[in-house]
Amino acid sequence: MLRDGDNFLLLAHRSPDGDTLGSAAALCRILHKSGKHAALTCADPIPKMLEFLTVGLDKFDFEPDIIIAVDVASPQLLGAAFEHYADNVDICIDHHKSNKLFAKNTYLDITAAATAEIIYDIAIALNVDICGKIAEAIYTGVVTDTGCFRFPNTSDRSHRIAAELMVAGVDAADINDRIFNTKSRACIEAELMIMDTLEFYLDGKAASITISLDTVERSGVEMSELDSMPNFLRQIEGVLVGASIKQSDDNQYRVSLRTRSPIDASAICAKFGGGGHAGAAGCVIDGDETHVKAALVKEIENYLAAL
Amino acid sequence: MLRDGDNFLLLAHRSPDGDTLGSAAALCRILHKSGKHAALTCADPIPKMLEFLTVGLDKFDFEPDIIIAVDVASPQLLGAAFEHYADNVDICIDHHKSNKLFAKNTYLDITAAATAEIIYDIAIALNVDICGKIAEAIYTGVVTDTGCFRFPNTSDRSHRIAAELMVAGVDAADINDRIFNTKSRACIEAELMIMDTLEFYLDGKAASITISLDTVERSGVEMSELDSMPNFLRQIEGVLVGASIKQSDDNQYRVSLRTRSPIDASAICAKFGGGGHAGAAGCVIDGDETHVKAALVKEIENYLAAL
Repeated sequence: MLRDGDNFLLLAHRSPDGDTLGSAAALCRILHKSGKHAALTCADPIPKMLEFLTVGLDKFDFEPDIIIAVDVASPQLLGAAFEHYADNVDICIDHHKSNKLFAKNTYLDITAAATAEIIYDIAIALNVDICGKIAEAIYTGVVTDTGCFRFPNTSDRSHRIAAELMVAGVDAADINDRIFNTKSRACIEAELMIMDTLEFYLDGKAASITISLDTVERSGVEMSELDSMPNFLRQIEGVLVGASIKQSDDNQYRVSLRTRSPIDASAICAKFGGGGHAGAAGCVIDGDETHVKAALVKEIENYLAAL
Repeated sequence: MLRDGDNFLLLAHRSPDGDTLGSAAALCRILHKSGKHAALTCADPIPKMLEFLTVGLDKFDFEPDIIIAVDVASPQLLGAAFEHYADNVDICIDHHKSNKLFAKNTYLDITAAATAEIIYDIAIALNVDICGKIAEAIYTGVVTDTGCFRFPNTSDRSHRIAAELMVAGVDAADINDRIFNTKSRACIEAELMIMDTLEFYLDGKAASITISLDTVERSGVEMSELDSMPNFLRQIEGVLVGASIKQSDDNQYRVSLRTRSPIDASAICAKFGGGGHAGAAGCVIDGDETHVKAALVKEIENYLAAL
């Protein structure tokens, strides 16, 4: 289908991260190199620190004949504004075990640590030289989803691809600086405020931090800058489940769960209609902060009791 | 010399980290597999989180005929208790540009991101199968010195070695958990106290945190647990030089400098008799906290002015 089509529209998932945007951007450029028209789009704005990936790729003046969802596990993850695409996705390229197989055709490889690893294979299959911005975008996807080769999903394949991308000239240090090593002063301020909300539950087996709208407003931080906060909780000795509880509305919280093996974060989030990976998942819970925390801790307790 | 000798004593550097201990432990086991006697030792205690590397390797009842310093750039870095070895080091295996060539024979490869990458080459040269604890120790060295493949010294060689080690069965996620992902509750407490000492200088181009003996005592943190604190400063937008100022005595501070390219941390530390790499270096400054900070900021200012 990639070889035969002419006009491709690529969809990234809502709250876009380095893998959905890196993968979509790389595929977009791979298609360009194959002589096709291609553009990418996303229901949510592109985070500032990821804009380097998508510059020049988000405008299009052609009628798409093939729509591709990239790193999108379910139609909901396209975002409310893009729900109209849900039944019209021709291809979904993804690595999430939880993929709902909603597309007409799905290329699902759950052994890939990042969708970007699949895009790497696609570039090779299409005989497109992996260099420049393509290599940069694939590298960004891989480091985003492997936590820079730190998460348990990292495989020898991830490292081999990284080695090839570095040989192809990727400035890995520069990308890592953009993705992991740069925090605005506003972000540092927000982090200090958020650290003050640290709470432990269940004999220290669970911990939470709360990111209120007030903290975001007072610090001036960009929400996407706080994406790595949930990981920090899982680092604390004895903590099996870490929850970042992010206020999204007066009476609604977006929960990011990070767990240590063998706790399945996606199983706990599924209780609230969410999903994700074993080590990292998310859900939305309605109610005030006290209610959200109590409901979450209750489900974590139930899960641990059933182990 | 490795093929011809029989009894090897390996010396790690003082304040031992994952590269000096991982490299020494791997080499120790490589020599054992080659039918030699070998043990390792260090002037300072082995940090708890690195003990898994050296278990069973630090006792010896043979008379060493070859002494090898591993990842040791100068005799001083052997530590005061080991100064008597300084003139008797037969081989130094190292990757620091600042190596003083103090040993009788030096295997210096400054293109290696970690000394452990050199040890990998040695294992291959000696035809020793890289598996089990050897692979684990080499992986630990590589991830320590590359900041888990995040620092600019990371090369395609680092990734290729990591891929081979994972194929050889290394549980990379487990080692990363030990090295990067576990913080004691005491450490979290200490970090919160240390974050309160954050100061900016020179229009935000430099920043410091101070780790007082009092903070260490009150939190109960193990000093080595705070090793990654200096890196955090360099992450702040606009900060070119980050200094972690660690009190080592009433009137003495150990400074860890982390810089962004093109600032050479080792050049600034050299002004105080210290050294290291371009992006990470250290020195010791005598005096009270106010004096130490003023002296340091002055040298940073001079360095920046001369750029």
